[in-house]
Amino acid sequence: MKGEIITVGTELLLGQIVNTNACYLSEQLAGLGVDVYYTSTVGDNPKRLREVIALGWQRSDLIILTGGLGPTMDDLTRETLADFLGLELILDTSVLANLRCLFASRGRKMTRNNIKQAYFPAGAQVLPNPNGTAAGMMLEKEGRIMVLLPGPPFEMVPMFENEVIPRLEGLLVGHRQVIKSRILKLYGIGESYLETVLQPLLEKQENPTLATLAKKNEMHLRLTAKADLLEEAQGLLAEMETVIRHLVGQYIFAADEETMEGAVGRLLLEKGMTISVAESCTGGLIGHRLTQVPGSSAYFNYGVISYSNEAKQNLLRVDPRLILQYGAVSGQVAEAMAIGVRELGPTSLGLAVTGIAGPGGEGPDKPVGLVYVALATGNKTYLEKNNLRGPRQVVKNRASQVALNYVRRYLQGYLDG
Amino acid sequence: MKGEIITVGTELLLGQIVNTNACYLSEQLAGLGVDVYYTSTVGDNPKRLREVIALGWQRSDLIILTGGLGPTMDDLTRETLADFLGLELILDTSVLANLRCLFASRGRKMTRNNIKQAYFPAGAQVLPNPNGTAAGMMLEKEGRIMVLLPGPPFEMVPMFENEVIPRLEGLLVGHRQVIKSRILKLYGIGESYLETVLQPLLEKQENPTLATLAKKNEMHLRLTAKADLLEEAQGLLAEMETVIRHLVGQYIFAADEETMEGAVGRLLLEKGMTISVAESCTGGLIGHRLTQVPGSSAYFNYGVISYSNEAKQNLLRVDPRLILQYGAVSGQVAEAMAIGVRELGPTSLGLAVTGIAGPGGEGPDKPVGLVYVALATGNKTYLEKNNLRGPRQVVKNRASQVALNYVRRYLQGYLDG
Repeated sequence: MKGEIITVGTELLLGQIVNTNACYLSEQLAGLGVDVYYTSTVGDNPKRLREVIALGWQRSDLIILTGGLGPTMDDLTRETLADFLGLELILDTSVLANLRCLFASRGRKMTRNNIKQAYFPAGAQVLPNPNGTAAGMMLEKEGRIMVLLPGPPFEMVPMFENEVIPRLEGLLVGHRQVIKSRILKLYGIGESYLETVLQPLLEKQENPTLATLAKKNEMHLRLTAKADLLEEAQGLLAEMETVIRHLVGQYIFAADEETMEGAVGRLLLEKGMTISVAESCTGGLIGHRLTQVPGSSAYFNYGVISYSNEAKQNLLRVDPRLILQYGAVSGQVAEAMAIGVRELGPTSLGLAVTGIAGPGGEGPDKPVGLVYVALATGNKTYLEKNNLRGPRQVVKNRASQVALNYVRRYLQGYLDG
Repeated sequence: MKGEIITVGTELLLGQIVNTNACYLSEQLAGLGVDVYYTSTVGDNPKRLREVIALGWQRSDLIILTGGLGPTMDDLTRETLADFLGLELILDTSVLANLRCLFASRGRKMTRNNIKQAYFPAGAQVLPNPNGTAAGMMLEKEGRIMVLLPGPPFEMVPMFENEVIPRLEGLLVGHRQVIKSRILKLYGIGESYLETVLQPLLEKQENPTLATLAKKNEMHLRLTAKADLLEEAQGLLAEMETVIRHLVGQYIFAADEETMEGAVGRLLLEKGMTISVAESCTGGLIGHRLTQVPGSSAYFNYGVISYSNEAKQNLLRVDPRLILQYGAVSGQVAEAMAIGVRELGPTSLGLAVTGIAGPGGEGPDKPVGLVYVALATGNKTYLEKNNLRGPRQVVKNRASQVALNYVRRYLQGYLDG
């Protein structure tokens, strides 16, 4: 079944709100096994809305429209659809009675224009809206299914889940398969290199399909399997994941919803270890990310943001001669910071970052993006030099990702490999 | 001029990412005076992509496409567009040289499939991408303008701002009125109260128009003026801003692009003061935000993330009896943290935050969202108790906003008012 989503509203075309409905409905339809090939947005304009509906009618089996069901003059979706389908709008007296009751219970006066919300194209099923005055509707004609829902997500989402999904599932019986996805998240590997390594898998992909996605600070691999049963789809995914892990396992830091900081926290908990951080150029971002994870107080004790040289000396006991000789952004100072922060308290690991976030660099040897990461473990102190690219805020973000990934690699035994 | 936005990517149709590009571009084009009537999303499928491009070509003057410019086999936007327009793809040797240089500087191997990113339809202007390997392009043909940009927003946005807007502005001269907006950012005032205070302005609005927008951690007021000349529009905005500042000035922390942390930094610089932070529940977020601002090393010296009680005692010299008697989340401990962090080094202000981010609270007196903010100035220590709502990450965000706004209010003289 081919699906299409049409979101209606001039506010969407003005960029005043992000179109989360298209995203939500796309995901839901994918889960139901409906192939969504197109989504469009159009304003509250009857001529252009009619064109977009006509196009959907030509190329899709299931069309979901959101928006334009309100009581105002702008709201024209019901009228435009009825007109396009050549259907009369008929008053639904039970919806009207509900509306009257709703207004009475809120102590508000019902205006004349609210009455139009009780009119539906002949033959439509009414979809009740527990959170607003705009009821939705669903109708089947000439082999197509049209669904109209209100635009506000807090009204649309429960209606889709409670009213639309059960009806669609009835219609889709026998027509659909389970679609299940798995996201593997990688860091430290480029998209084109990843693709070269996975070339054989990418070329012969059928089921599961495999796609690479470049995200802000990481690469995602999306595996999507289709099958008649969930277990079957999961089996196909697990099989392909095994092959991928064999090829690029050391770059995979997490899967699905887990974040880098979540993975680091999980590994620390598994090993019964704690961590503390000394941050210069990241300015607190690593501590912030570690403490985004609920329960992080079990493994995160403290941090020092040593932005100035004095702070490195006074709070982390970095030897001022090191700073003088090598500069604050140097491997020597990074190691001293890591050891210094570890010695401030009882903690297993001391992680330190010093670098140049920009906008200005410090000469040819110390350009923007030069970032040292050091990890003191008590037995040994590990050090990595990185050249990161981008403006200030991007360098900070990348530096935090490099540093957390460094801890992840240490905890998984890759640093001594 | 009629504009249209086409976002390309199967991941958008699967609902795996929210389409923020369509929103951003819609807003930008509205600001340029371009009427956007349609936006569409289509997958990485050459047949369907070609159909959508053909439709845009029929009905719009300016078509902006994002996505599908990557190096992989999936990425087909450049090829599909060139094919639709009947244009040959031609190697741009300077782009290729840049790519080689980029890969060399990162110490990565450039693969064969990256080379396709150096090919452009004949006659296209190349739009450089400082944050990635996918250069964009712009071309004019038969009275239409087509723009292709990469999909990742951190690449697309700077390219749109630096490369596309100046070119479009040149093309739009004479066709349009000036539309100029001004955003006033407020904190500590609710939307409905703000609307009540501004009721007269909101009711009789014509030019400038006035809209309230509830953002994540702040309220925005958007003033939009139309005029023939820029100076005229700016005059209208300034006039309305004066009235608004008269009514709610103490809640306004910044305007336009300036952030809360930017405003705090600006005020510190103006007064020649420095700040240091002691963070418990915010975990480093305040330090991170302060250091997002270029040049923040001039006023931000250091911070301590005192997540555990031991860290509060050992690093900030908080009297352990205070923690025992009042608990780590208390006004007494917040004040001791603020004084403690201020005394660690030469700094004008010590800012401290302690609170409960959740998910678990600590009994009826200490629910999730209880956050104390203290500011030690040497002469006096200010304290504020807040009850913030939301899950963990929201509480952390709000706590950082409350704390920075507290410093802003101190620096503007509102705390002693």
